[in-house]
Amino acid sequence: MSLVIGVVGGGQLARMMIPAAEALGIELRVLAEAEGSSARLAATQVGDYRDWDTLHEFAKEVDVVTFDHEHVPTDFLHKLEAEGIAVRPGPDALVFAQDKSLMRQRLSELDVPLPRWAVAETAADVDAFLSAEGGEAIAKTPRGGYDGKGVAVISSSSDVTEWLAEGPVLLEEKVDFRRELAQLIARRPGGGTREFPLVQTIQEGGVCAEVVAPAPGANEGLVAEAARIAHTIADAIGATGILAVEMFETTDGRLVVNELAMRPHNSGHVFTEGAVTGQFEQHLRAVADWPLGDVSLRNEWAVMVNLFGDAGNERIYAALEHDPEVKVHAYGKEPRPGRKAGHLVVTGSDLEHVHQVARAAARAGEGAE
Amino acid sequence: MSLVIGVVGGGQLARMMIPAAEALGIELRVLAEAEGSSARLAATQVGDYRDWDTLHEFAKEVDVVTFDHEHVPTDFLHKLEAEGIAVRPGPDALVFAQDKSLMRQRLSELDVPLPRWAVAETAADVDAFLSAEGGEAIAKTPRGGYDGKGVAVISSSSDVTEWLAEGPVLLEEKVDFRRELAQLIARRPGGGTREFPLVQTIQEGGVCAEVVAPAPGANEGLVAEAARIAHTIADAIGATGILAVEMFETTDGRLVVNELAMRPHNSGHVFTEGAVTGQFEQHLRAVADWPLGDVSLRNEWAVMVNLFGDAGNERIYAALEHDPEVKVHAYGKEPRPGRKAGHLVVTGSDLEHVHQVARAAARAGEGAE
Repeated sequence: MSLVIGVVGGGQLARMMIPAAEALGIELRVLAEAEGSSARLAATQVGDYRDWDTLHEFAKEVDVVTFDHEHVPTDFLHKLEAEGIAVRPGPDALVFAQDKSLMRQRLSELDVPLPRWAVAETAADVDAFLSAEGGEAIAKTPRGGYDGKGVAVISSSSDVTEWLAEGPVLLEEKVDFRRELAQLIARRPGGGTREFPLVQTIQEGGVCAEVVAPAPGANEGLVAEAARIAHTIADAIGATGILAVEMFETTDGRLVVNELAMRPHNSGHVFTEGAVTGQFEQHLRAVADWPLGDVSLRNEWAVMVNLFGDAGNERIYAALEHDPEVKVHAYGKEPRPGRKAGHLVVTGSDLEHVHQVARAAARAGEGAE
Repeated sequence: MSLVIGVVGGGQLARMMIPAAEALGIELRVLAEAEGSSARLAATQVGDYRDWDTLHEFAKEVDVVTFDHEHVPTDFLHKLEAEGIAVRPGPDALVFAQDKSLMRQRLSELDVPLPRWAVAETAADVDAFLSAEGGEAIAKTPRGGYDGKGVAVISSSSDVTEWLAEGPVLLEEKVDFRRELAQLIARRPGGGTREFPLVQTIQEGGVCAEVVAPAPGANEGLVAEAARIAHTIADAIGATGILAVEMFETTDGRLVVNELAMRPHNSGHVFTEGAVTGQFEQHLRAVADWPLGDVSLRNEWAVMVNLFGDAGNERIYAALEHDPEVKVHAYGKEPRPGRKAGHLVVTGSDLEHVHQVARAAARAGEGAE
């Protein structure tokens, strides 16, 4: 009898857990939102995870429940845990990836460096924060935002009138940053941890477009501080599986935490080819409570570039034809403008060359279909 | 619409094509022999490939037919080709992996170095060959042998009385060899080829137990000769996908061809982690007529060790616990003594260390279940 891990959500993250599960000899089952999901090969059930009976039916037949996304209601997860079902990460950790205000509160208690922040319930709260911040701030809906949605730069309380009508709004200092970094760490239920190399992420329009591993020019102190932050958070909240800590490197060289994700993360795609153990395998090993793998980089540099819009056969063909060292990952999605449809990775010893090849390969097949 | 590749046979080779197909965005369908096959995740049909209607029903719904094994009758494959279905490798090539006598005949015509050989139809033929060879030779059934089955060292025609009653027997010089090597090459239908690094294979009881890449101490001349042999064969017979050429390195430093396989091969498992492009991805790219990938090694050395008997969760756990650099591949099979149940790969810069870690990790979980 092999271990059965059930993944809630059938997106590309669940899809990319399939090869890892096959290699490890773990049975992977996916509760997908719809037919034809990215993870359709492993989808044993199609249904709405927001429906208790659907979720329960799926969860009670697996050994460990884990996630393709962070949207499962925590009260459902508490009910599953009460039945003795292993939920990893558990609801007490996952809530900090679901609710940005709770995350800010918890990380403040842990003395983790953060942007200045406040929760505004009224327009007056917003104006007071803006006034203290010199007239400009970041506003976020505490729940439901992703890839630039639910985030806005504001200069007046009137910019968030609609959001305030729905509930409190999280306000943050508009950090003057040099670049964005991400620190991934895997943690087993018993507490064993391994952090991945620190990476730089490059956003376009609030969406991750490229990742470079390791973060170029990061000195020993910065690398140690990023690892310290990730370990502090993972241990304090009891995260299991992959925890991704998105950070700003400020113009004066400090790190402040931007967001948390508690699942494999776009910034970690670079490790499938770039590191001895990729994030999908590490996530499964962690939630299975198996020994964690080595995460040393296999080469000096690894660069990931997302493929937006489509990653159909013609585009993949063009990328492979561009350079025989290009490694591709298609997500099996129908083409749609702006959609994350796949990614590619190039590794090597010369960062400039690696970056150039990866970008050119991503462009090679644009509009191919 | 994505390309659909159909694999006949649901063993571990088909199983390990699944991750490659997912990454490339190719739909993989498997015709498995039975429920619960290694490749069950992608099995869209279960049935007997020796039944024309079963094979035909499977093949007519895919774009390209390829194989987990070489046992599909060539007359069926000719019929599929006559219907316009792409069969890769095609029957005119595959027959040389099915019938060792035909292989010896064809390779002789190509001036590929071979052991001395003859086809014996009678006991007198056998005795004549034995006499010329100094009283000892290798006898093989031309069809159906694998992993040491259908192969015998003989010193008398009475050793093959039963085989002769069934039909002609292939006789071969008992080669005085230093070690065994394997040269894998991928070929596209149009003729593009890429050869993998030459590897050494270590057999135990006629079964591949370990593989080292690259073949230690192989000089430039030997490497070039192995590549030349593989290119000669692949081009002459029109192989598509992976062709594996098993060779002896004789005690006097020559290469002679032992066997051919026309599919991913145990000796190529080492490349999934060891090379930029693994053999399963390369096989799919080749049979899809897509650009072939770079096959440079990612590290100085890569060692593969087969896991016999079982590769259940406990054994895999023990192997991973032994060393965090160990990469495992479980085949999802029920335990059975001597069965190839999985393998593991370790890469690094110090061959002795890599080899030691791989062997110890393979032993770590023996008898765990």
